[in-house]
Amino acid sequence: MGKRLRHGVKILAILIFGILVINLLLLMGFEDGDIPNNFEYYQKMASDSRKHARAVFKEILQDQSKVISDNWEVLNFTKFSDNDRNRPIVFIGGVPRSGTTLMRAMLDAHPDIRIGEETRIIPMIIQMHRHILSSEKEVSRLQEAGVSETIMEAALGAYIMEITVRHGEKASLIGNKDPLVLLSMVQLAKIFPNASFLFMVRDGRAVVHSIITRRVTVTGFDLNSFRSALQTWNRYIEHMHKQCLELGLGRCLPVYYEQLVLHPKIWMKKILKFLKVPWDDSVLKHHETVGKPGGISLSRLEFSTDQVVRPINVAALSSWVGHVPEEVLKNMPQFAPMLANLGYDPMAIPPNYGIPDELVRNNTQYLKASNIFPDNSIPKDTIERVRKNEEALRLAKEYQKSRI
Amino acid sequence: MGKRLRHGVKILAILIFGILVINLLLLMGFEDGDIPNNFEYYQKMASDSRKHARAVFKEILQDQSKVISDNWEVLNFTKFSDNDRNRPIVFIGGVPRSGTTLMRAMLDAHPDIRIGEETRIIPMIIQMHRHILSSEKEVSRLQEAGVSETIMEAALGAYIMEITVRHGEKASLIGNKDPLVLLSMVQLAKIFPNASFLFMVRDGRAVVHSIITRRVTVTGFDLNSFRSALQTWNRYIEHMHKQCLELGLGRCLPVYYEQLVLHPKIWMKKILKFLKVPWDDSVLKHHETVGKPGGISLSRLEFSTDQVVRPINVAALSSWVGHVPEEVLKNMPQFAPMLANLGYDPMAIPPNYGIPDELVRNNTQYLKASNIFPDNSIPKDTIERVRKNEEALRLAKEYQKSRI
Repeated sequence: MGKRLRHGVKILAILIFGILVINLLLLMGFEDGDIPNNFEYYQKMASDSRKHARAVFKEILQDQSKVISDNWEVLNFTKFSDNDRNRPIVFIGGVPRSGTTLMRAMLDAHPDIRIGEETRIIPMIIQMHRHILSSEKEVSRLQEAGVSETIMEAALGAYIMEITVRHGEKASLIGNKDPLVLLSMVQLAKIFPNASFLFMVRDGRAVVHSIITRRVTVTGFDLNSFRSALQTWNRYIEHMHKQCLELGLGRCLPVYYEQLVLHPKIWMKKILKFLKVPWDDSVLKHHETVGKPGGISLSRLEFSTDQVVRPINVAALSSWVGHVPEEVLKNMPQFAPMLANLGYDPMAIPPNYGIPDELVRNNTQYLKASNIFPDNSIPKDTIERVRKNEEALRLAKEYQKSRI
Repeated sequence: MGKRLRHGVKILAILIFGILVINLLLLMGFEDGDIPNNFEYYQKMASDSRKHARAVFKEILQDQSKVISDNWEVLNFTKFSDNDRNRPIVFIGGVPRSGTTLMRAMLDAHPDIRIGEETRIIPMIIQMHRHILSSEKEVSRLQEAGVSETIMEAALGAYIMEITVRHGEKASLIGNKDPLVLLSMVQLAKIFPNASFLFMVRDGRAVVHSIITRRVTVTGFDLNSFRSALQTWNRYIEHMHKQCLELGLGRCLPVYYEQLVLHPKIWMKKILKFLKVPWDDSVLKHHETVGKPGGISLSRLEFSTDQVVRPINVAALSSWVGHVPEEVLKNMPQFAPMLANLGYDPMAIPPNYGIPDELVRNNTQYLKASNIFPDNSIPKDTIERVRKNEEALRLAKEYQKSRI
């Protein structure tokens, strides 16, 4: 006792202060409904909060694993039965192609966590419920029959829990990654009192570019129109972001894909702390077990994701540059106001996402030099895309220099 | 011991023999796929099995309640938790307007049983599952994600159990009455290992007449065509009947609406025995508690059902007579082959459903004499229908006489 405890209290105080500041910044960004034109303000805000976060993390990292193992007993996972709706559960989501698979693969590498493949059926049943609840007539008929919304939610919870628990191995912390279920975050938070939400955020331009070039079928996205797809991205992410703020940082943690890729260790420490799970180095080596027996299970549908089968690298961050129609580029703030709201500069091509950590730099260089693609399912245009990425990175560097 | 036990064994032997005979008769009726033209054969078969059933029941009734209370401990309802999928549960169904509400109201009057209103949402989720499983592509995608059919069934079971348990009061034996879920009888029997099924059967001509005149919206029924609606009845009941035979009489009991109404005591004894629930006189006085505080709960949607708000009577049995288009009447065996398969004479208008018990005769006479209609929701054409019923009953009697 004594020294170590005082140290823990100090760290906690810093963390609370940090959360308050971030909340304040977020609130400031939301106080007016119009689209602000002062991008420098957002750029600065994003940079400030990044700097602040860095400072906080630095303190935390000094002895984080010790602090966590001291407090580990606080969350007793074993006291819940397998199907208990009160057990801790993590929902990973966001707009598809925002790094949700990478996030879940990194967590799946942890010995105490199991997320597993996209179940597909959980979004379907949530959608069915949403559809029913949207009809006043149906709701009143159901109430007439003694089927209240609370009862429907209990049934929905039992269904989701059953699928989540059974479609993979047992683990202290189980989770679900069907990206769009975060559109129902507030409802899920009510159904599962100890659920946490990891809300993946990624530059909408990169998301839409990825959806369109990979021809990924996602509800609501028009694969033939960059503009329309970008507006869908904006609508979805606005809806999720609002709910994430409503739940608060204690239950919903926004994770910026770019930041996760640039600084995996810092973010994974933060994420595991948020999930109340002790640190384990395996989360930084997810690629070593992916698709191998006893390792992380990936469905054939998810395998095309570069980041998941390779060590973390930044090759894809700016691959969208040069693929956005000019008309969209010019009206970016109007088409996707959430870009600025989330701290991305809508007029920068690409924005300064930040400088990768040494580990990530090494990974990226290694991948570029070796030109090894470990699995056959990677689309044939990968070489071409890598070339474009290099071009984009070159542009990004120039852009970066020009801003200094 | 001794005497009572020997008596029990004797009754059991007679029951097993009776079941074997009925099975044999049913199998005989199903051995050829064509529509048989020999209606006398079916008439005789129905009459024989009715006679036989009577003989068996007579034996059983001699001391049924004693036998049941002796064996009552066999089914220990309390050993299951509320949401346990292994707990006993009864599904009441059939084609809508076949007496399913009457059946569930009679059972709801029992102190140990609670069925409750139609949930509406249980058929919806079953339909969603059927829809998913009908797509091979979707099934293979789900399997890819670790979501097997077994897991889907577990989730479906958890959902149905949650709705069933929560939408009404607690009881030793709970149940569900959403008529068309019996289309998924075999699947439900797999999901709920101790589920029983009460399969309501009613003359298809009466069912269709009721659906059409009351403008009841039922999936698949065209309210503007007697012929088309009758064919839908035939398709539905054929599908359910097949599954009921597949499960066997130990798990699925077909209950003829006409027989239930004519001989309520005999049939309720049989049904409670089938459900392993001790006899209670309240099941014959369901109308005394319907819609009253603490009594049987009926939703506004279900209240228009005459039989449920009044003592059991036979006024509605033949109300269809005089309302079937001639073209349909002539081709009845072709349009509705299941009529003959189930033992109804397709050419008789109406068939001889049987002679009501004294209690039922008294109820019917009382209702006709008093002309009291206890609630306002009964359609305005009821008086007219009662007149037609009387006409139909007169015709039925004449017909009956002419057959002797």
